[in-house]
Amino acid sequence: MDEFASIVGRFPSEVYWGDCDPAGIIFYPTYFRWMDAATWAFMASVGYSPKRMREEHLSMPLIGAECKFVAPAQHGDRCEVRSRISRFGGASFVVAHEIARGDGSRLAHGTETRVWARYVNGPGTPIKSQPIPDEVRDLFRAK
Amino acid sequence: MDEFASIVGRFPSEVYWGDCDPAGIIFYPTYFRWMDAATWAFMASVGYSPKRMREEHLSMPLIGAECKFVAPAQHGDRCEVRSRISRFGGASFVVAHEIARGDGSRLAHGTETRVWARYVNGPGTPIKSQPIPDEVRDLFRAK
Amino acid sequence: MDEFASIVGRFPSEVYWGDCDPAGIIFYPTYFRWMDAATWAFMASVGYSPKRMREEHLSMPLIGAECKFVAPAQHGDRCEVRSRISRFGGASFVVAHEIARGDGSRLAHGTETRVWARYVNGPGTPIKSQPIPDEVRDLFRAK
Amino acid sequence: MDEFASIVGRFPSEVYWGDCDPAGIIFYPTYFRWMDAATWAFMASVGYSPKRMREEHLSMPLIGAECKFVAPAQHGDRCEVRSRISRFGGASFVVAHEIARGDGSRLAHGTETRVWARYVNGPGTPIKSQPIPDEVRDLFRAK
Repeated sequence: MDEFASIVGRFPSEVYWGDCDPAGIIFYPTYFRWMDAATWAFMASVGYSPKRMREEHLSMPLIGAECKFVAPAQHGDRCEVRSRISRFGGASFVVAHEIARGDGSRLAHGTETRVWARYVNGPGTPIKSQPIPDEVRDLFRAK
Repeated sequence: MDEFASIVGRFPSEVYWGDCDPAGIIFYPTYFRWMDAATWAFMASVGYSPKRMREEHLSMPLIGAECKFVAPAQHGDRCEVRSRISRFGGASFVVAHEIARGDGSRLAHGTETRVWARYVNGPGTPIKSQPIPDEVRDLFRAK
Repeated sequence: MDEFASIVGRFPSEVYWGDCDPAGIIFYPTYFRWMDAATWAFMASVGYSPKRMREEHLSMPLIGAECKFVAPAQHGDRCEVRSRISRFGGASFVVAHEIARGDGSRLAHGTETRVWARYVNGPGTPIKSQPIPDEVRDLFRAK
Repeated sequence: MDEFASIVGRFPSEVYWGDCDPAGIIFYPTYFRWMDAATWAFMASVGYSPKRMREEHLSMPLIGAECKFVAPAQHGDRCEVRSRISRFGGASFVVAHEIARGDGSRLAHGTETRVWARYVNGPGTPIKSQPIPDEVRDLFRAK
């Protein structure tokens, strides 16, 4: 399948003291916390803010996530997560993330596979996958 | 005000690698995560399980929390949080927690001040404080 | 004891999806994670960066922390932690934090009580409290 | 490459309130936190406790991690992570994890790819990969 030609989102992050482990480097689930926050920020950047997602009873549950760790990050490192949609399926989509430090060195790269979904009976109720609207695809398409 | 004569809840916990910071000791917000989980387990022990709380649209939001850190915990330490209700007000209550390591040494002690509340229009909607039912007070009273 | 006349540090934060709980509001230990990160940023702002702290084998372990929760924060809220040193003792100091949302509303306020300390034999080894250098006090004094 | 015939480690976990997000289900990085803790517990079960790892200056940094999310978990679910070594390379190894709820339903499955490593100059200093000792392979081999 062809890769989707996606715009790129940029999410700033920083390695805090509590994100690091006794080895003095970033505790790896932190990267997944960043990837999740980066995807929400990416959605917000095209008009789907947390508030709108809540009001329209939309959600983006995951069916998979993976990350390769290239170089360790330390407390105080300022980073950036660069996100793009690498694939749109009928109801699922893949967000590809690159994580780099301020000095340009690449720290990690990974993907999240998510489903476009709606709370059937409002917030807190079970969710059901939905066809991804064409409008959403268009919002992420590089011009 | 007199202290409430409370039963004691016991919540087992363990210091994981990712709970520690580059100093090699527990990252302090971990104690608050434990205190929160211990309170939910304490509620469940008297019949208010997470499932029942959800079904009855009940919640226990906090208005304050504090902890004193007595001795550092390390990766691998097995601990116990001992919880009791130190005070019941009209709609608020205080949970006092003692955190000890398996060898008996005391690591930390703190309190959470919480409100008994209900989601006005079901899960995910705003919450409103409620008078604490006598039944709830009785369930926590030491016999 | 007189309050210390402190400069004010400003630390930007944002409520991410994973910082919230099933009630749809911020999970309270998140505030303590922010307070910790804000203190490190405050130190960095006067010249004590994470890198310098590591190289000089300095640490700031806590002996206590408390927070009052005034209003709930939601996913997507942009916030600021305003920090100042409210007290300097011989080897300990208190950092007072105010947490406000972008719209100006106050969400929480708390304190951390910390000790100025040094790793006796380098990183990862036990730590020992140290008299707070006059230079450090001066760096935080409002002019 | 042939799969390694591994013993199976069992790590109990529970979904706490703070592990869940506003959708009322587990926040996915929690699964990675569990996988990390399960691997440390698996190591401890064959004699490599956190204390021994520290004393022998050993570490297990990751080069990759992935997880598939099969069914959502909710607050209060008691779970088990079942871990085995699916592959031993020269200096790297893969830990495969299955996560199931107490009722037997499968929630997630994933892998961590790790390196056997040592702190060159003691705790907190840079780490260097090491050939995995035959003794370690033998400890994980199913009899």
